[in-house]
Amino acid sequence: MPIPCDSAMRRPEFAAWMKQGNDITQQFLSFGNRPGLIALSGGLPAPELYPVEDVQKAVHRALDKHGSSALAYGAVEGLSALREAVAQRLSTDRLSLKAENVLITTGSLQAVELIGKALIDPGDVILADYPTYLGALDAWLPRQPTYGELPHGGPWPEAKFAYVVPNFSNPTGAVLSVGARAALLAQSSESGIWLVEDDPYGELRYDGVVQPSLLAIGAESGSTAYDGAVVHLGTLSKTIAPGLRVGWAVGSSEMIRALSQAKQGSDLSTSTFCQAVALELIRADADRRHVPTLVNTYRERRDALCAAAQENLSDLFEWSIPEGGMFVWMSARQPGLDTNALLSFALKEGVSFVPGSVFDPRGHVSPSLRLNFTANPPELLQEGVRRLSRAVRDYAAQRPAAE
Amino acid sequence: MPIPCDSAMRRPEFAAWMKQGNDITQQFLSFGNRPGLIALSGGLPAPELYPVEDVQKAVHRALDKHGSSALAYGAVEGLSALREAVAQRLSTDRLSLKAENVLITTGSLQAVELIGKALIDPGDVILADYPTYLGALDAWLPRQPTYGELPHGGPWPEAKFAYVVPNFSNPTGAVLSVGARAALLAQSSESGIWLVEDDPYGELRYDGVVQPSLLAIGAESGSTAYDGAVVHLGTLSKTIAPGLRVGWAVGSSEMIRALSQAKQGSDLSTSTFCQAVALELIRADADRRHVPTLVNTYRERRDALCAAAQENLSDLFEWSIPEGGMFVWMSARQPGLDTNALLSFALKEGVSFVPGSVFDPRGHVSPSLRLNFTANPPELLQEGVRRLSRAVRDYAAQRPAAE
Repeated sequence: MPIPCDSAMRRPEFAAWMKQGNDITQQFLSFGNRPGLIALSGGLPAPELYPVEDVQKAVHRALDKHGSSALAYGAVEGLSALREAVAQRLSTDRLSLKAENVLITTGSLQAVELIGKALIDPGDVILADYPTYLGALDAWLPRQPTYGELPHGGPWPEAKFAYVVPNFSNPTGAVLSVGARAALLAQSSESGIWLVEDDPYGELRYDGVVQPSLLAIGAESGSTAYDGAVVHLGTLSKTIAPGLRVGWAVGSSEMIRALSQAKQGSDLSTSTFCQAVALELIRADADRRHVPTLVNTYRERRDALCAAAQENLSDLFEWSIPEGGMFVWMSARQPGLDTNALLSFALKEGVSFVPGSVFDPRGHVSPSLRLNFTANPPELLQEGVRRLSRAVRDYAAQRPAAE
Repeated sequence: MPIPCDSAMRRPEFAAWMKQGNDITQQFLSFGNRPGLIALSGGLPAPELYPVEDVQKAVHRALDKHGSSALAYGAVEGLSALREAVAQRLSTDRLSLKAENVLITTGSLQAVELIGKALIDPGDVILADYPTYLGALDAWLPRQPTYGELPHGGPWPEAKFAYVVPNFSNPTGAVLSVGARAALLAQSSESGIWLVEDDPYGELRYDGVVQPSLLAIGAESGSTAYDGAVVHLGTLSKTIAPGLRVGWAVGSSEMIRALSQAKQGSDLSTSTFCQAVALELIRADADRRHVPTLVNTYRERRDALCAAAQENLSDLFEWSIPEGGMFVWMSARQPGLDTNALLSFALKEGVSFVPGSVFDPRGHVSPSLRLNFTANPPELLQEGVRRLSRAVRDYAAQRPAAE
């Protein structure tokens, strides 16, 4: 049976958005494997802190209790008991959440993607802080949105939704004050525009005072299920382990129904097995019991990185010490410094970071960069900063007339 | 801090595709919970057959061997060892597959979705059999494709890809002959158009002879990695359990890179934990060892359903006995019979099925319906068919002048 040669040259083109995508996340994930490289580029927890024993116990309980139903297809929206557990966790005196307010997602990145899938037609506007989370920009790219910078002081232009990471923003580490949160809620109410509160890092606070969530501030008191404009995203990836891929979106039942419709065509449902394990972990409060260990370790690492930077980089960069999260955002004192170009010098010295351009919805070259402090022990963070300092000086020597 | 009332009335509109979506899959999943209903509508394996003990053992091995790395983020493409195991499984004397030919996905529905995401701009053409898999139609809807009926006899029109389920098609149960497979490959080679071979049911064969896959038939002999136009989709959902959500796409490294780029913005990676468990299951051949149990049980169920239909429905419907898979596709002898309208009569009698219209890319009303025979024991299948027979007679009595 003679089959003609495949003609790879004549294959159909990939979709238009594929040409605009950056593969920097994949690049950074693959950096992790270079021998000797100190990766300050990742957004990863410290794997040695994963509560393996707690997970093992939860797996046994999940299989013992639920048996074969932990292996079945589940409802698109997630296991009822897990949706209820998340609803109960986040409810307050004023905020009444029911299972119908919760969608279980395959990591909270999936929730981010589903919001774009459910709301965005090509050209529709998303309001976001500049810089903003790279993963969200990647997730929304196939929907071909346009971006507007989120006005924190005045009225909002027409848009489908506004996106914020109010606690320890990725990449800047900034925290929104209660006043700023209330102002966002007022503008969202005024305009009707959905307000997406992405909160993967909220539990990782090393100093300062916990701020109430947008979801909680915006809630009307009462016993009926939440019906407001906030869509709150959470995850077990930072407090337990990312390999479970269990996150959630919490919002009005109208929004949860829409996100469920979008999820049905994405992966039918999140792994029932992982959901059953997550349920056992949450019931045992394993995530919350684990937080102090994470906070103590990460605080020490943040301090080690910032002290090393003070010693080696303070003549060249400035930064705020973040109260939580996983990142320090450094901006060159010399605004002409191009951190895209700096990256190759850094890789030559054996250290990686993420250049600010990838967090800019317009892709503008940036004098800023993001350093992660959670995934390496203090000694490696210190050595990484020394390498980065050498890289900046190599860069400056080869580009004497700073642009 | 006075927050104005939310104005739900003024919320932004959802994306255009959301209005075209059908929620019939969700409806059918929820039918499953009606007390007393016999659900012949699902596409579900028999949960009592899930190899819970094998999974338990695999979980222990995965956590013992891989420890915290089974809980970490993994590469977008999947665990290397799992990619290699899948590549090895599917390689033949003539077909050389490497890890670079494999993407691990969150169930094989995600692979279906990613193919649309990577290839389709609005209006682009997908070639498919009419009727075709509902889940694929749902997955592609947000990309706003147009459909053309796949010509099995002649040249293909311009399109991005052709989609086939060559073994025990969903919904019709049909198998493509080797000649028909070769003809598809010839047209794909002629045109350069990608050929998607979705094969979730291939292992579930109850009679007849195994047919070689499109991937295997189309392979050039040689030791270089596969570089052809076939994208082959597989899953552990039917041979082990759907709750793991582990599937795979196998194709040229160019296609796998494109699908990986699309996956990055969907869920970053499939649960590392589930992948580690899947790896242990495949290494132990647990899925293949489990197939004879499934085949014996499902054959008995197919035979029970078909015998009951012969007794109760053969004056009204005709069908072929499928050689494998999960479904019997029945077409009314009276072509005016509208199976959308029949469904409410069936639900009243306490049985559900899937009307043929949902499998038609144009949504045309259909005189056909799909019955599942894997998820219920023989007695319930027999009772379900009797109820369906009563429903058809109720329907006919109330619509005497068949349209």
